[in-house]
Amino acid sequence: MSNTDRASLAARLQAHILEHIPLARAMELRVARYDGAELELGAPLAPNINDKGCAFGGSMASLMTLAGWGLLELALRAHDIECDIYVGDSQLRYLEPLWGELRAIARFAQADALDTFLKTLSARGKARIKVLCAVAGGERDAATLEAAFVAKMR
Amino acid sequence: MSNTDRASLAARLQAHILEHIPLARAMELRVARYDGAELELGAPLAPNINDKGCAFGGSMASLMTLAGWGLLELALRAHDIECDIYVGDSQLRYLEPLWGELRAIARFAQADALDTFLKTLSARGKARIKVLCAVAGGERDAATLEAAFVAKMR
Repeated sequence: MSNTDRASLAARLQAHILEHIPLARAMELRVARYDGAELELGAPLAPNINDKGCAFGGSMASLMTLAGWGLLELALRAHDIECDIYVGDSQLRYLEPLWGELRAIARFAQADALDTFLKTLSARGKARIKVLCAVAGGERDAATLEAAFVAKMR
Repeated sequence: MSNTDRASLAARLQAHILEHIPLARAMELRVARYDGAELELGAPLAPNINDKGCAFGGSMASLMTLAGWGLLELALRAHDIECDIYVGDSQLRYLEPLWGELRAIARFAQADALDTFLKTLSARGKARIKVLCAVAGGERDAATLEAAFVAKMR
């Protein structure tokens, strides 16, 4: 898949999210980058601030969950597969306050997991995959997410 | 503490959240009930919907996180203690899709944990407590959260 195709998929993903998920609109979410292995979502601080003036934990959780969901959505669209994707068990760590823009970067937990996932999905109509996601902070991550996502063929 | 005092604390909590956390305004969050042991937050489905027409996982995560944070905030305000409260490690489970209003109910993981927490906070200026939270679903919970919260004296 070419860089142009990936950019087009990413643009369509952003339009889909903003059209169908009102909270993503409220967060002013944007798809920042997709290279086939990683998906980066961004959001400005102002609509995602908490009462202490730093990023609201719920906004970081939402952005990371959408980054993981979007990463799998894009991988499936790249293979022309139509699925409903649901987030499953998630482990969130909040490591340090974030005082600026939110940037969440998602990748699959294992580099070769997508092949197995696609084979299982094709055989059983349902499959599960693990995603790692982090919100970039100052010197280290501000928050991280480990989450399972389940795809079901429509 | 009387029921009237609790209702007044809950009303002030709702005003504080809606004033200082824009995402909570976007979610149309309200404080539904506080009885000293449990805090219930509510939000309508429409602003919290996803592209499948059910509740967005990020909205459920945000509502449960705010319920846990609010429960500890209210317990501290009831003791006239001023703290900054941060969410820590969180385990989220998404159990079934939710097709209606969001209702998140939070309680401390152990009934007697607050006493120990208050003693530690008084001695060290910092303490940690575990909270359980669930979003009510049809027959069982739609989602659950186990989270640590850390309070630091100002």
